[in-house]
Amino acid sequence: MFKITSEVANKGMSQGSATRLLSSSAAVGRSYHVETDAFGEIKVPSDKYWGAQTQRSLENFKIGGVRERMPEPLIKAFGILKKSAAIVNESFGTLDPSVSKPIQQAADEVIKGDLMDHFPLVVFQTGSGTQSNMNANEVISNRAIEIVGGEMGSKSIHPNNHCNQAQSSNDTFPSVMHIAAVTEITHLLLPELTALRDSFAKKSQEFEPIVKIVRTHLQDATPLTLGQEFSGYTQQLTNGITRVEQSLHHLKYLAQGGTAVGTGLNTKIGFAEKIAEQVSKETGIDFKTAPNKFEALAAHDAVVECSGALNTLACSLFKIANDIRYLGSGPRCGYGELSLPENEPGSSIMPGKVNPTQNEAMTQLCVQVMGNNAAITFAGASGQFELNVFKPVMISNLLSSIRLLGDGCLSFRIHCVDGIQANKDKIAKLLHESLMLVTALNPKIGYDAASKVAKNAHKKGITLKESALELNVLTGPEFDQWVVPENMVGPK
Amino acid sequence: MFKITSEVANKGMSQGSATRLLSSSAAVGRSYHVETDAFGEIKVPSDKYWGAQTQRSLENFKIGGVRERMPEPLIKAFGILKKSAAIVNESFGTLDPSVSKPIQQAADEVIKGDLMDHFPLVVFQTGSGTQSNMNANEVISNRAIEIVGGEMGSKSIHPNNHCNQAQSSNDTFPSVMHIAAVTEITHLLLPELTALRDSFAKKSQEFEPIVKIVRTHLQDATPLTLGQEFSGYTQQLTNGITRVEQSLHHLKYLAQGGTAVGTGLNTKIGFAEKIAEQVSKETGIDFKTAPNKFEALAAHDAVVECSGALNTLACSLFKIANDIRYLGSGPRCGYGELSLPENEPGSSIMPGKVNPTQNEAMTQLCVQVMGNNAAITFAGASGQFELNVFKPVMISNLLSSIRLLGDGCLSFRIHCVDGIQANKDKIAKLLHESLMLVTALNPKIGYDAASKVAKNAHKKGITLKESALELNVLTGPEFDQWVVPENMVGPK
Amino acid sequence: MFKITSEVANKGMSQGSATRLLSSSAAVGRSYHVETDAFGEIKVPSDKYWGAQTQRSLENFKIGGVRERMPEPLIKAFGILKKSAAIVNESFGTLDPSVSKPIQQAADEVIKGDLMDHFPLVVFQTGSGTQSNMNANEVISNRAIEIVGGEMGSKSIHPNNHCNQAQSSNDTFPSVMHIAAVTEITHLLLPELTALRDSFAKKSQEFEPIVKIVRTHLQDATPLTLGQEFSGYTQQLTNGITRVEQSLHHLKYLAQGGTAVGTGLNTKIGFAEKIAEQVSKETGIDFKTAPNKFEALAAHDAVVECSGALNTLACSLFKIANDIRYLGSGPRCGYGELSLPENEPGSSIMPGKVNPTQNEAMTQLCVQVMGNNAAITFAGASGQFELNVFKPVMISNLLSSIRLLGDGCLSFRIHCVDGIQANKDKIAKLLHESLMLVTALNPKIGYDAASKVAKNAHKKGITLKESALELNVLTGPEFDQWVVPENMVGPK
Amino acid sequence: MFKITSEVANKGMSQGSATRLLSSSAAVGRSYHVETDAFGEIKVPSDKYWGAQTQRSLENFKIGGVRERMPEPLIKAFGILKKSAAIVNESFGTLDPSVSKPIQQAADEVIKGDLMDHFPLVVFQTGSGTQSNMNANEVISNRAIEIVGGEMGSKSIHPNNHCNQAQSSNDTFPSVMHIAAVTEITHLLLPELTALRDSFAKKSQEFEPIVKIVRTHLQDATPLTLGQEFSGYTQQLTNGITRVEQSLHHLKYLAQGGTAVGTGLNTKIGFAEKIAEQVSKETGIDFKTAPNKFEALAAHDAVVECSGALNTLACSLFKIANDIRYLGSGPRCGYGELSLPENEPGSSIMPGKVNPTQNEAMTQLCVQVMGNNAAITFAGASGQFELNVFKPVMISNLLSSIRLLGDGCLSFRIHCVDGIQANKDKIAKLLHESLMLVTALNPKIGYDAASKVAKNAHKKGITLKESALELNVLTGPEFDQWVVPENMVGPK
Repeated sequence: MFKITSEVANKGMSQGSATRLLSSSAAVGRSYHVETDAFGEIKVPSDKYWGAQTQRSLENFKIGGVRERMPEPLIKAFGILKKSAAIVNESFGTLDPSVSKPIQQAADEVIKGDLMDHFPLVVFQTGSGTQSNMNANEVISNRAIEIVGGEMGSKSIHPNNHCNQAQSSNDTFPSVMHIAAVTEITHLLLPELTALRDSFAKKSQEFEPIVKIVRTHLQDATPLTLGQEFSGYTQQLTNGITRVEQSLHHLKYLAQGGTAVGTGLNTKIGFAEKIAEQVSKETGIDFKTAPNKFEALAAHDAVVECSGALNTLACSLFKIANDIRYLGSGPRCGYGELSLPENEPGSSIMPGKVNPTQNEAMTQLCVQVMGNNAAITFAGASGQFELNVFKPVMISNLLSSIRLLGDGCLSFRIHCVDGIQANKDKIAKLLHESLMLVTALNPKIGYDAASKVAKNAHKKGITLKESALELNVLTGPEFDQWVVPENMVGPK
Repeated sequence: MFKITSEVANKGMSQGSATRLLSSSAAVGRSYHVETDAFGEIKVPSDKYWGAQTQRSLENFKIGGVRERMPEPLIKAFGILKKSAAIVNESFGTLDPSVSKPIQQAADEVIKGDLMDHFPLVVFQTGSGTQSNMNANEVISNRAIEIVGGEMGSKSIHPNNHCNQAQSSNDTFPSVMHIAAVTEITHLLLPELTALRDSFAKKSQEFEPIVKIVRTHLQDATPLTLGQEFSGYTQQLTNGITRVEQSLHHLKYLAQGGTAVGTGLNTKIGFAEKIAEQVSKETGIDFKTAPNKFEALAAHDAVVECSGALNTLACSLFKIANDIRYLGSGPRCGYGELSLPENEPGSSIMPGKVNPTQNEAMTQLCVQVMGNNAAITFAGASGQFELNVFKPVMISNLLSSIRLLGDGCLSFRIHCVDGIQANKDKIAKLLHESLMLVTALNPKIGYDAASKVAKNAHKKGITLKESALELNVLTGPEFDQWVVPENMVGPK
Repeated sequence: MFKITSEVANKGMSQGSATRLLSSSAAVGRSYHVETDAFGEIKVPSDKYWGAQTQRSLENFKIGGVRERMPEPLIKAFGILKKSAAIVNESFGTLDPSVSKPIQQAADEVIKGDLMDHFPLVVFQTGSGTQSNMNANEVISNRAIEIVGGEMGSKSIHPNNHCNQAQSSNDTFPSVMHIAAVTEITHLLLPELTALRDSFAKKSQEFEPIVKIVRTHLQDATPLTLGQEFSGYTQQLTNGITRVEQSLHHLKYLAQGGTAVGTGLNTKIGFAEKIAEQVSKETGIDFKTAPNKFEALAAHDAVVECSGALNTLACSLFKIANDIRYLGSGPRCGYGELSLPENEPGSSIMPGKVNPTQNEAMTQLCVQVMGNNAAITFAGASGQFELNVFKPVMISNLLSSIRLLGDGCLSFRIHCVDGIQANKDKIAKLLHESLMLVTALNPKIGYDAASKVAKNAHKKGITLKESALELNVLTGPEFDQWVVPENMVGPK
Repeated sequence: MFKITSEVANKGMSQGSATRLLSSSAAVGRSYHVETDAFGEIKVPSDKYWGAQTQRSLENFKIGGVRERMPEPLIKAFGILKKSAAIVNESFGTLDPSVSKPIQQAADEVIKGDLMDHFPLVVFQTGSGTQSNMNANEVISNRAIEIVGGEMGSKSIHPNNHCNQAQSSNDTFPSVMHIAAVTEITHLLLPELTALRDSFAKKSQEFEPIVKIVRTHLQDATPLTLGQEFSGYTQQLTNGITRVEQSLHHLKYLAQGGTAVGTGLNTKIGFAEKIAEQVSKETGIDFKTAPNKFEALAAHDAVVECSGALNTLACSLFKIANDIRYLGSGPRCGYGELSLPENEPGSSIMPGKVNPTQNEAMTQLCVQVMGNNAAITFAGASGQFELNVFKPVMISNLLSSIRLLGDGCLSFRIHCVDGIQANKDKIAKLLHESLMLVTALNPKIGYDAASKVAKNAHKKGITLKESALELNVLTGPEFDQWVVPENMVGPK
């Protein structure tokens, strides 16, 4: 398997002497197709569609190995873009249907993910993503040639002249960055985030009748309902949905049509608008052409903006997951107000030891999103003149954040939130042990007497009621009538 | 002067032995008023309006000294809020006009900044900001007492019962956080950011006729106009305005009315809405009551969101300021395409050595904003249960970012951008020395001949025209007719 | 008072129209001394020692106001450096004693902090810190002139020729960065950090006999002693001391002697070494001359390194302060194992509501340190060619981190750690309610029977002992003999 | 291939409906072995060695897919640790050689990387890494059973009792974190960093004779040699080596022997020390047992510390790579002082357009390291009580940083630094066009005349020599004798 061999070879290389990199990575007895570029001929494994520029990048950027490959959604976005460009170029009459159709067919295979093994390049390559753009051109070229029965490497369907027609890496790569991010947010993150919000909303309703003591400064405070507590989480996620949606506004602008420096040199008038329309058709999402292509190539503020929204969402989810694991802590020596679903053995002998593993996964991925945001920020600020050359690392981090949050919301929902149970007994016990309910006695027995009741209870470790009765400031029935936590959970 | 004495004393403390903190900070011969709280009596300098809780905080949190004091816009926001609360409480009939009016008058003095010296507390105090809320209550109480001719410390106009009526630190502090941030953004940042954008738009128009060589990967590329280049900066800032404005949406929700845990316990129904209305009247900005007070106390996602917008803006400004200082580098050994205004002596003997100091200030403050964003992120994620106790550090960083960006936009505009001049000679020289114009010859003399012209020019260090004439592939007039950079700056 | 006037003026400026900046900030009727530089004459308030370049910076960089002034330790370090340079230049015979002595005397006043009001410049100025270097030269010049009875502004003791002799901003500013940071770490942070560590060590010993249940994944786990738990905190701080000390290694190298670009042009051979020696004498700290001055001017990796150590320390302190506030949570509805000192009223009626305010201050300052580290990182990476022009923002953040951590360690120690009490009753109660002790029964009654005991206890909400007796698997005395938490706190 | 199927399935899941996660991921017709844990039976593909707990984690944590799998060096470290534990347990007589030997053999296969496909779990799982510890136990158990001819799933060589003997996830996972990080730093990062430093040192020597104009504030300044400039880079990397080495100090301490909470419950006295010895033997690196196991489980400050060192190194490399790409910018319209190796076609027609792709890869990976550092920082601060449950995300980010920096240093060296050429003509041209050399005339013709020469040259765009001759202030031979840049590159 090429993938595995490559990885092993690469690892070996990074631990051995310098000369290793210069030796051929070719295994004995393999077959190849010969590809060419301005530097001359180069061999590519015969079971791979890529061409010379991809192969050179593979050899020149042995950084990070397989786990640092360009993310899949970006590759698929290249399929969408290249298909759209073929259609638009055909409509302009600059690309013959006999060339355009097989390109579209090959691009469809890229979209479906069937050719993923033919995109071996890593993130840490040229900062314009040129080599990945060429990877897409080369793979689509050779696969299209294969479809029409030509010879791989012959360039009869040309990677540059046909697949990259009227395009430059400098406008395709920012375009696929936006297509990939918007698509992933639309199809993965927003649905899962909404589903998680809905799960919290449902729990909030379910828990509405349960009155509990809450904490400020981690110290016992006045009561509210568990439903109210969960309504706060629900609101956070509702706001999070709004934030993520807002960040799509600038992401839906495509750089395509700017070509090398933003002027659109070598494109027809109208090309930029048509591409945006065609990509919209392919994706079912409303993309537009960027109003200023210089900005679209030289800066990736839209990516920083989106990452900021994800960063805020990560803060929300971190807080929520953290609260819930504390509320589920115990079973005997923690807060113990919630029971979290048990998804795997906690301890073979210890009943009730349910580790909040989903919360741990969630909080871990949230810090990853925050780290990604730091990387994106720095990279976003570091563009130079007409080109930001941190494109791959920016989109890699953004797609990582989207994927982790989307997957995380799903996992957290079905393996944790949906199954949270309230430990009503423990909640009631804490509520009635609490001293904070004394505030309800102020209007009845006066501030001073109420204070004495609380102080006496605290000193002796008894309940408020016991203390009040001991101090003879009221009767049992009076206490029960006056101290009603349910009446303390809202304005009058 | 108390301020200076305090600082010196504090500094001494942080460098001396531990015992220093325990000794009295009182200078001999000073006069005091005596204040009381649940812990008993405590002396406060007679020229200060604050009370016991402020004094205790001052002694218990000697962290960071004067430069870490609560930011001024927050103090002013307390004035706005306390005034509004007095008005609303008076309207509910729970606060007598004879008490409400002097409170309003004192609060107005806080708003005007006249009492700033009476807010000595630092950011690194209790995480709910309780002590600053009490500082506001105490100062307004004593000043109101003074206005009506009472005795300071007498609590005849009570800091808690009157100034803090129907309020809790837990809802006032988040409210002033939002009031301060929205006010500063509205009155400082957005106007200055817009003015800077307009300055770039003007420069973009002014520079529209100037064709130049631009750079991708820092390498010479095809031409565009200096106006187009500046239009990219303009677009970045236009987007930045949108981003900052969007972030006001959630910031305009006020927590006021949630009291201690979000339930609104001890408030009248309608209090929350009336406060938002009154604050809107005071500020001329459309504030609303938060739809969910639990979220508003326990999380400060709106602050994280806003910081994310500022962080994105910082990326834009960093990129712009960085580009411009490189384009102005020289005078002889750099890019030298722009002349930046000379605001201070660069070198006494070296004419033309104009250091891009405004750009340096701008890029420095941008990294500060990014650092602030990291602090805000971590703090925003670290709320616990019903209260986020990182309120002061969050708002301190947010207000710092707003102030720096606002001041920075102003300074950068009037001391740099407005005065940028294009060095047309240098720009023209580089344009015509560039080899990238050879692409214009492809359709005329063919790709191969054009390539030879470029290679010959590169090898011999001559211009394209010289090379073309030397190789006899065209005539001088043909060259001048065919190689017209002005025709290369847009689609056909 | 100039300071206050300036601040008010500055604030006004950032909120008003653009033209305000262009108007004179001079109040009517003030007196001035006239200063000159290459740009001509400029007026300076007569009660201030600074000169023309300081005044211009003050007018050109109205960014952030008083709270963004250059930090005090940096100003004092300028005093140390300028004094040292005068001594060394005198020793080389290039500075006459009649000039050197008054410079030294004025510099001594800077060191003592007596002239702090004469250093009004903010961090966000030229990125080389040139204007603050000139501020120091100008103040020392005019004060020295005053000492010898000359006329301020006359330059009879010259800011450049004498005070800055054989120096350049490009080597003085990095030098004072290092001097200030090392001094603050040595005199503030390390003593306070060590004292805090010692306080934890003492608590660890005090708490050694107290066996408790601990938590992993926040879930009840096997016992250890409270002393062991605190020994972990102690170790973290011991390691922190090592980390901070290690980071001094590179910080103790001084750039002085590199002059403008690192070559040492215009210095005598031996100047660099002599300055390091003299600064060492002044400070009692072993500074050395940097082995490579190009690195020392162009990069500030030593600052990034030190900030990384402080960032690690902030992680430690955040964790410790967080643990302790959870362990002190309650009084009834939290962990409640520790009682934290009550430093201010928590709630007037609620006994036992002690808010962990010191912990909140500590965790807040820790996130500030983390944010500072992010700013320092980005700034540290952004140097260009022979000069990093993020010097002021880097040192400002570093000194902020040092000060906050130093002050924070002191405040946390004396107001919290020293006074922590163990709630032995609550600890014992939790220990004996815990089900985790069942593991001690495995070797006695077998895994299966032990498991049944635990499950039965969990199901019925009874203790292990009650469950075991109910299930008749052992006797009460057997239980007491076999289940001894004290025997579970170490290897056998 | 399982790996690919799994990925496709997983991706599908994150984009489809929620129910998909609940369906079986089993392909029709596959064969299985049945594994059991406390939750009962579960099927595992017959070509995989893992057991029930791994399978459950695989189903419960579908977060991030294949690219988020636990990093390879960590898996290999598990091999080292499990082998060492078997040897030590055998030496204590608690593990029979008939069990220990096959465990060691299986562990050796893990070390060699032969079983990598059997470690499918992702980073975002339980925060203790328990599931990966069990993955290692299960794979080694089943492989060892296979070696001795037993039945997979039979637990005849038991994953817990034998493979995990005297261990807990809570001490094994921190141990493998340290083993993996130290190993990767020792075998990958430090050698490659040293080689890169040496390459710079060599270039510094090679470039020693080349005098050039340098830039401060990006503005032309006095001369130094290109060798001096490169000596600064060399020094940065020399310091970087020291920093990384220092960070190994705390990383070489192993938590092993602490078991579940740090007490060492269930271990023999001496176990901790023997494990450290055995791991040292296996790795050839001097590991030690951690002096305090509570700290070693509950905090991962050593990881934060190491990340801080890598972050500093990233700052150095970012600055260096950035400088070099600017110095190589052009060919006509940039600085153009250096020629960087051409590793791939830049432009087919444009000779001399060599994009600095290696620099772009390097600066991109540096921002990734900075982002990783932010994630590690937050995670490191967020430990709770006896366990930090951010272990996987911390080590994943640290190993990513190490790998990227190691691979990056190698790639940057062989594809860029080794091949850098000085463009002596361009350097000389800039040097002699520069106006900064006028400072050499001060002692000869006086400051005023020198100043006039410079101003005249600047105004007319002529050289200093031309200006001086035009103004008749000296003769041509005098100019050539007095203005000698070579004499300006050091102190006198």
